[in-house]
Amino acid sequence: MTNELIGLLADKATRLRIHSINSTAEAGSGHPTSCMSAADVVATLFFHVMRYDPQDAKHPNNDRFILSKGHAAPVLYAAWAEAGIIPVQQLLSLRRIDSDLEGHPTPRLKWVEVATGSLGQGLSAGVGMALNAKGLDKLDYRTYVLMGDGETAEGGVWEAAALAAYYQLDNLAAIVDVNRLGQSQATMHGADGQAYAKKFGGFGWQTVVIDGHNLEQILAAFEQAQSTKGRPTAIIALTKKGKGVSFLEDKDGWHGKPLKKGEEVEKALRELPLTGPPRAIEIAKPSPAANGKPGRKPVAAPEYKLGDAVATREAYGAALTKLGAANPAVVAMDGDTKNSTFAEKFMKAYPERYFEGFIAEQNLVGVAVGLSKCGKVPFASTFGAFFGRAMDHLRMGAISMANIKCVGSHCGVSIGEDGPSQMALEDLALFRAIPNAVVFYPSDAVSTERLVALAAEHEGMVYIRTSRPKNPVFYRNEESFQIGGSKTLRSSGNDRLAVVAAGVTVAEAMKACDLLSKEGVAIRVVDAYSVKPVDAKGLLAAAAQSNNTLVVVEEHYAEGGLGDAVLNAVANDGVRVFKMAVQEIPRSGKPEELLDRYGLSASCIVKKVKELI
Amino acid sequence: MTNELIGLLADKATRLRIHSINSTAEAGSGHPTSCMSAADVVATLFFHVMRYDPQDAKHPNNDRFILSKGHAAPVLYAAWAEAGIIPVQQLLSLRRIDSDLEGHPTPRLKWVEVATGSLGQGLSAGVGMALNAKGLDKLDYRTYVLMGDGETAEGGVWEAAALAAYYQLDNLAAIVDVNRLGQSQATMHGADGQAYAKKFGGFGWQTVVIDGHNLEQILAAFEQAQSTKGRPTAIIALTKKGKGVSFLEDKDGWHGKPLKKGEEVEKALRELPLTGPPRAIEIAKPSPAANGKPGRKPVAAPEYKLGDAVATREAYGAALTKLGAANPAVVAMDGDTKNSTFAEKFMKAYPERYFEGFIAEQNLVGVAVGLSKCGKVPFASTFGAFFGRAMDHLRMGAISMANIKCVGSHCGVSIGEDGPSQMALEDLALFRAIPNAVVFYPSDAVSTERLVALAAEHEGMVYIRTSRPKNPVFYRNEESFQIGGSKTLRSSGNDRLAVVAAGVTVAEAMKACDLLSKEGVAIRVVDAYSVKPVDAKGLLAAAAQSNNTLVVVEEHYAEGGLGDAVLNAVANDGVRVFKMAVQEIPRSGKPEELLDRYGLSASCIVKKVKELI
Repeated sequence: MTNELIGLLADKATRLRIHSINSTAEAGSGHPTSCMSAADVVATLFFHVMRYDPQDAKHPNNDRFILSKGHAAPVLYAAWAEAGIIPVQQLLSLRRIDSDLEGHPTPRLKWVEVATGSLGQGLSAGVGMALNAKGLDKLDYRTYVLMGDGETAEGGVWEAAALAAYYQLDNLAAIVDVNRLGQSQATMHGADGQAYAKKFGGFGWQTVVIDGHNLEQILAAFEQAQSTKGRPTAIIALTKKGKGVSFLEDKDGWHGKPLKKGEEVEKALRELPLTGPPRAIEIAKPSPAANGKPGRKPVAAPEYKLGDAVATREAYGAALTKLGAANPAVVAMDGDTKNSTFAEKFMKAYPERYFEGFIAEQNLVGVAVGLSKCGKVPFASTFGAFFGRAMDHLRMGAISMANIKCVGSHCGVSIGEDGPSQMALEDLALFRAIPNAVVFYPSDAVSTERLVALAAEHEGMVYIRTSRPKNPVFYRNEESFQIGGSKTLRSSGNDRLAVVAAGVTVAEAMKACDLLSKEGVAIRVVDAYSVKPVDAKGLLAAAAQSNNTLVVVEEHYAEGGLGDAVLNAVANDGVRVFKMAVQEIPRSGKPEELLDRYGLSASCIVKKVKELI
Repeated sequence: MTNELIGLLADKATRLRIHSINSTAEAGSGHPTSCMSAADVVATLFFHVMRYDPQDAKHPNNDRFILSKGHAAPVLYAAWAEAGIIPVQQLLSLRRIDSDLEGHPTPRLKWVEVATGSLGQGLSAGVGMALNAKGLDKLDYRTYVLMGDGETAEGGVWEAAALAAYYQLDNLAAIVDVNRLGQSQATMHGADGQAYAKKFGGFGWQTVVIDGHNLEQILAAFEQAQSTKGRPTAIIALTKKGKGVSFLEDKDGWHGKPLKKGEEVEKALRELPLTGPPRAIEIAKPSPAANGKPGRKPVAAPEYKLGDAVATREAYGAALTKLGAANPAVVAMDGDTKNSTFAEKFMKAYPERYFEGFIAEQNLVGVAVGLSKCGKVPFASTFGAFFGRAMDHLRMGAISMANIKCVGSHCGVSIGEDGPSQMALEDLALFRAIPNAVVFYPSDAVSTERLVALAAEHEGMVYIRTSRPKNPVFYRNEESFQIGGSKTLRSSGNDRLAVVAAGVTVAEAMKACDLLSKEGVAIRVVDAYSVKPVDAKGLLAAAAQSNNTLVVVEEHYAEGGLGDAVLNAVANDGVRVFKMAVQEIPRSGKPEELLDRYGLSASCIVKKVKELI
């Protein structure tokens, strides 16, 4: 630590402040004061502490930086400009419709792995990356997550913090930019750095409280983070929002406000003088690391006998384990439900590739996003109902283009006596509204195994819905399935209508078909195992053969599920669609009783068909 | 604290254990061991510490008990039976389809205010109830929240804990049942009570670690909680899962497993001997409190001039303030966005009825649920996108039949340069999938004010979507609006089709109508301000007058929003529905540019109409 280094970093920090002011003023919007409080920390990280190759965004051993306080995007872009990663003049295109430099960072930019802007999610992604380094790839890169102070009110931060301590992630450091001012008022703790230190310390982290504008203290804190073993470090940086410009520093009313071009900007810049042209600063290179893709083998085929009684959740466990054998990049996580979701089969076979998430679903998804950005294919499971805890993480995961696979068990009323708090009845609505997500809903063990393997092959988010009850196997082991596919299980030349089902209702539909055929009524039965994208072509064809009448039966509320997927597929084509879904909040009872009470059983289907024909 | 009291409580605790074993064995499912670890704490609360009137579930000054670890429902039901609230024999109907005693507690039962079973939510509701006592009703009831240890991994617990300390809720106590074993494995901290104390202590709570089966220690801990001023208390109770029966105590593999009726149950019960018949125990009464309903006045009418440029989010602030003047039960909360959502107008007018939630949306909703159960009408606001953080709390809120009003601003692409992380594009899908929720989407200031007032009158969950841009006022101040209503804004005898819009797209649709009429093309424009329930009758009538062709334009993804609401309303009636929605993840840009880029602007509507006619 020399005076020269301090001088260099101070110069960089000043440039970051200048860029932040200029780019947001040009854009007419943005958060310059949030950038200015962080500038010294960011300068220290990008120009001394972090080891990375500015020419190679994808070097596997680059230190990772996550700007969890995503609204400070301009300071991140400024750091890239100063590092030579992007041209300085590009900074003035901030927030324009034709610029890659968006208001909050997105992976349109190759140096952004996870999109941020919805607060409290960055630390989870960082935990994923740190877990990968320590537990999987055995690399020495360090992960740095910069958060805002107000942001630490988010529960997701504490889910991540707890897991980081549990996994002893000493290769992870969080920096909290304690600039006292939130968006609409002062934060809960104001400038009380000790309050943050007590929280992180209480959660098992090493903590250090510093003056976030004192470069010596910043450097010392990062050194402490690097040398601390056995636990992650939280650097609580006491800062001033708008630091560097007197009329902005620590003043109310400047959150998310750009300065006005012209006089106001010039007045500010006069307080940020530069002493010369930009000086070259050497950025430490990452340690060498192979970028190898580990060998893959074919996934072992299903091995069931027709008629075997196997729950799709059980088949998931088998499928995941087979995936584990075939693809070394596949890893798994679960939220303390692994004995119910059957992720534990994978855990037992590949314990080094399994991470227990405990009861913390936001972090379950966030960590999976982080792992996916390290080239892993993470399968994260819990009860389908609890993925709702992570809706915002899934939304951001889609913006991050994260290759994660979510598996939700215990869908619908057929879970039985546990009752509505444990029943997923709106999860299809959630995942259907996530852009580019693929949604699978297998109905037997064979299709489950095939769809799980397909999910791993697919690049992008996949949701797989599994059920609790045992179900007879009715697909042959060799059967193949496609994204956007469906299967016709029963058909004749005289189908009066087609019942479209998925999961548990497929068996109910086939029972109904058998009952009706005894009465001389033929119906078609379609297994719509791909809910998104749905097999529009197949559905139209089925309808054309079945009096243009489709009855959709699903263990889900009427809004947003398979029924809506079907309706959208055949809208405007003269096909009538009738939805059989759960119409009210269900209650405890035996699985068969509930399927009947909520109108989804074979006898209910028979009744509906008779009404319609 | 006498030997006699200890003896009485020990006897009650034994009975709670016996009931838990018997009821779950009869049901063939349930979580007896989770009940048995909590039995001593529950007995102490129900038969000594809590003041409540067993004859009056709705006494406003009853101490409140929230079983956040909802799977221990049998021990709660057992406590009621022992308190004479329900007949003992009813306990054997647990989990049956015809029984009110469901697998997890629901407000079908009058002593349950908030449904639990999805972990990590009870403390938020408790914070709401404690805030009401301390800040609003000025009552002396205390609120007790019993959590599991594994449950404290949930971030929602820490959102609630932080706010409880911030608001100095010394009338709130949390008990953590540290029985070491989660569902699928030991918890993160096992039997390390200090780890929990450090977490709660780090968050500013008073903490006390006790032997959770030592009645003297339990009593002393509750006394400490009652006498502690200025901060809430966390009682860390070290327990054994399955306590009381040797072959269950602290054993793996017994989570969620009932004992088998017959030999296994008898073997267990032999270890839980009773020394006589149930003894009367006096339950302390709550302090008297008026149950008055404070006076109401009519809500002041809107006072805008046609053509005024007012954002619906601004109108929300005005509407909420008028509500505050009219209805003393209306309270408000916001997640550090009040200057953007305009909740701050209410805060300035009625600071004693406003609670700052900070950046913690799960807790924002959970606290609102708690307040609603105290007879308040809470309006909770943040950006629409961030309500996704609280999807599971909303889901449970519906099961709780909570009368909460959620207001999400910054919907759609029209927010502009901040970009996709801040844009709500799937919030209609979320709230439409919540049973019994009402969803409003006003398009101008007058309708906003009317709909906010209507929301307050309605008993049940309401979501109101507001927009960022200023919009011209086009409804007269006297206009009235209904749940399930819509308004036809433009119509003629020659409408070629009807454009159905809401929010910002209504103005775009009217612009398009004007442009088209210059070319001699007439279209109908419908403001579908009630998204759920949607005005099916009105839409069919509009379609009948418009070539049975509806074009729905919404600032939302195609899945789950207004388009799907319309599609469902007219399905099977021969009406063609075309959806104009956001088809990909958007990006930063100016609001008008983005509306155009993503196909929602007036010119896009004109283009679509021409294609269709």
